[in-house]
Amino acid sequence: MTASTALSKVLDRIDRDLDDSLDRLFALLRIQSVSTDPAYATHCRTAADHVAADLKSLGFDVSVRPTEGHPVVIGKSNGAGAGNGKAPRVLFYGHYDVQPVDPLDLWQTPPFEPRIETLAGGRKIIVARGACDDKGQAMTFVEACRAFKAVTGSLPLDITMMIEGEEECGSKHLFGFVRDNAAELSRNLALVCDTGMWDAETPSITTSLRGLVYEEVRLTCADRDLHSGLFGGAARNPIHVLADILSAMHNADGAVTIPGFYDGVHELPADIKADLAGLGLTPEKFLGPIGLKIPAGEKGRLLLEQISTRPTAEVNGIIGGYTGEGAKTVIPGKAMAKVSFRLVGAQDPDKIREAFRSFVRARVPADCTVEFGTFSNAPAFEVAFDSPSLGKARAALAEEWGKKAVTVGAGGSIPIVADFKTVLGMDTLMVGFALDDDRVHSPNEKFDLKCFHKGIRSWARILAALAG
Amino acid sequence: MTASTALSKVLDRIDRDLDDSLDRLFALLRIQSVSTDPAYATHCRTAADHVAADLKSLGFDVSVRPTEGHPVVIGKSNGAGAGNGKAPRVLFYGHYDVQPVDPLDLWQTPPFEPRIETLAGGRKIIVARGACDDKGQAMTFVEACRAFKAVTGSLPLDITMMIEGEEECGSKHLFGFVRDNAAELSRNLALVCDTGMWDAETPSITTSLRGLVYEEVRLTCADRDLHSGLFGGAARNPIHVLADILSAMHNADGAVTIPGFYDGVHELPADIKADLAGLGLTPEKFLGPIGLKIPAGEKGRLLLEQISTRPTAEVNGIIGGYTGEGAKTVIPGKAMAKVSFRLVGAQDPDKIREAFRSFVRARVPADCTVEFGTFSNAPAFEVAFDSPSLGKARAALAEEWGKKAVTVGAGGSIPIVADFKTVLGMDTLMVGFALDDDRVHSPNEKFDLKCFHKGIRSWARILAALAG
Repeated sequence: MTASTALSKVLDRIDRDLDDSLDRLFALLRIQSVSTDPAYATHCRTAADHVAADLKSLGFDVSVRPTEGHPVVIGKSNGAGAGNGKAPRVLFYGHYDVQPVDPLDLWQTPPFEPRIETLAGGRKIIVARGACDDKGQAMTFVEACRAFKAVTGSLPLDITMMIEGEEECGSKHLFGFVRDNAAELSRNLALVCDTGMWDAETPSITTSLRGLVYEEVRLTCADRDLHSGLFGGAARNPIHVLADILSAMHNADGAVTIPGFYDGVHELPADIKADLAGLGLTPEKFLGPIGLKIPAGEKGRLLLEQISTRPTAEVNGIIGGYTGEGAKTVIPGKAMAKVSFRLVGAQDPDKIREAFRSFVRARVPADCTVEFGTFSNAPAFEVAFDSPSLGKARAALAEEWGKKAVTVGAGGSIPIVADFKTVLGMDTLMVGFALDDDRVHSPNEKFDLKCFHKGIRSWARILAALAG
Repeated sequence: MTASTALSKVLDRIDRDLDDSLDRLFALLRIQSVSTDPAYATHCRTAADHVAADLKSLGFDVSVRPTEGHPVVIGKSNGAGAGNGKAPRVLFYGHYDVQPVDPLDLWQTPPFEPRIETLAGGRKIIVARGACDDKGQAMTFVEACRAFKAVTGSLPLDITMMIEGEEECGSKHLFGFVRDNAAELSRNLALVCDTGMWDAETPSITTSLRGLVYEEVRLTCADRDLHSGLFGGAARNPIHVLADILSAMHNADGAVTIPGFYDGVHELPADIKADLAGLGLTPEKFLGPIGLKIPAGEKGRLLLEQISTRPTAEVNGIIGGYTGEGAKTVIPGKAMAKVSFRLVGAQDPDKIREAFRSFVRARVPADCTVEFGTFSNAPAFEVAFDSPSLGKARAALAEEWGKKAVTVGAGGSIPIVADFKTVLGMDTLMVGFALDDDRVHSPNEKFDLKCFHKGIRSWARILAALAG
């Protein structure tokens, strides 16, 4: 059987097996694996065991590994289906835990009783907590593996599965787990199915995640709060000092003025930028739903660049003086701001942090003091646009969806993906099938049946492409 | 008996009568007339009756006038002692109520058991709640009247006394009382003894009070809080907008940039400015005690100008976004600041408020909205430097203290004094004998015996001068 014949049979099998795939997903969706609430701990354990049993049935060497929180399910094909020996060995990452369901009264049907609903126009959706995030998405990969196993008797690649149970509460024990088991988990490439499509017709690969430097600035001027009648005009007001600093951080074109801030920021390749421009993300479309119209970022950039592939500086919080009802004529002694930077490319978080602190210190009057606190200091993550596996995945997605797959940057960060790079030394292909209207984390979470079905087919194609 | 002979005898009598004056002050100080606490309401009534009886003994036509709060004591000489007919008819304003005494355990002796303490170097102080503010200060005027009455048989001027009982809780019923009785209370000049000396040797007249415009600025950008990873770089951050506005409000020289802000601000007469410069108020002296060194106001101005005779713009409070512990990557939908302006000279509060609002609106992006709230809108008060009664009072004080009396502006406002001008149509001479270390409003409040004694003598000289 040639590889293309095999893939064709695998895809047929996926189509025929869809009802059973759905039954298996529903069985997982019925488990109330809410990770953040200790009352659901046994349900989380049940979910881990359920996943473990399923992977075992596919021939994985499975262990349910304890952590100080919920367990991590590890499944290894141990070289089985290693293909031609040139194919990458991959680590697939997903999570079996889900978000809490409250407010429960907003759910149209119970969150752990999955169902198929047919919308106007015939669109079918799977409704349940976790239908998309991440049980539904993770199962697209598992079902693709199952189809390969059924049709060819083995997996097309060497695959290690890592399905954790704490993603929805910060993956707090996974970081240590990955460090402690680095040798065992290190592969050539990580695969993640926890992101979204550009829209219902356009597949997407997330090729970059912005890093994050998060600083707190605590400014002290006078050693007490002052009466503005007695001291107003002579005593330094820390809110004025902070306002001056924060205002100076951007120029009139929306660019960040901190010296060296853009060191390590690359321009997108022309073809990628053209792809992004072609997506036509307008201010109306992106900002309209939140009540805005005018992009606030760097002038001369696509809105899509502003939110994904360009770095930012944002004040996330500020407080000083009297903020209650009515008036108090105070000049406060202290003021505080929280400032964060989204990083891209090769921006160095340590250098950004120091450049910011120098920028602030240079603007603090000699008789005032400033203290800093650090809450995050993570570099950006990006996949090289010329990476062979990226090219193969894009081609596979285009084949399945009949439309070019876009590569997008995600504005936020997925911390464990940064660790895959820094601790395990491998890149990550983030391919996901979520849609913007999936109500992830909200009542009535759903996953389009088409996304589930074509998601399975997409992974079958990607696995075949990586094996080829 | 010539006027100067009479004054000389009055001053002698004040010196001889000092112990009795102190006894009378102590009797008043023993009354626990804390106005803000309803539990002390009967004590306030007792104090009012006590003051009324004392004024009656001096020949005043006295009434204890009810308000919805504590009563106002009104005493009228009804033309008795109207002097040469050219002298001004005066309204003396003081208050019989005092601040609460807590924290009680910080008092070295009980607050309502007045005593004389002799400090190192022989300086004697009267210690009690109200010793200075305002029982001690008000009694300097009453005792001066008593001495005139004893020596000459009458008062040197037509005097109306208005001693209220709610100054320490905002004089809230006095404003209405003054409006309702404007015809009865309107005189040529108001006298107030509730301010301070420049220092223990230098008498002072407060010739201006800064006005106050107090605004709240509520800015809305997005209609909800946003995740900075998803929206950072495209969504307008209201904290940035506010910081830009607040920063733009001052230029590098510390001057306010709002167009028209300085309209109506006069330069001080050269001699007055020279007087102020001669007082040598240094940054070390004024800012040192609060932990600062560098005056923050308009460059090229005396520190004393900055805090009293120059207008200011201060941000009294600001809040937006996440201000708790740790990090939250939010771009808030809203941010708020409280901004106030101290006004001087003929600055028009309405115009300042509108100029500020225009300044803000011009800097709010077209897709964001701003709302304003107003908490104060009061003009500055100032006595003309060429006012005859001011000149006479300065000369009288110089005579008593052997040192030129300075005229200073007070940075804050005394709202009722503004009403004396606007409702009763008269200027106010604010002459007081408090010192910076009197611990007014704090435990162990005191009044220097010398200030009490020479305060009485000062008022005798001022009354004689005004009558002359």
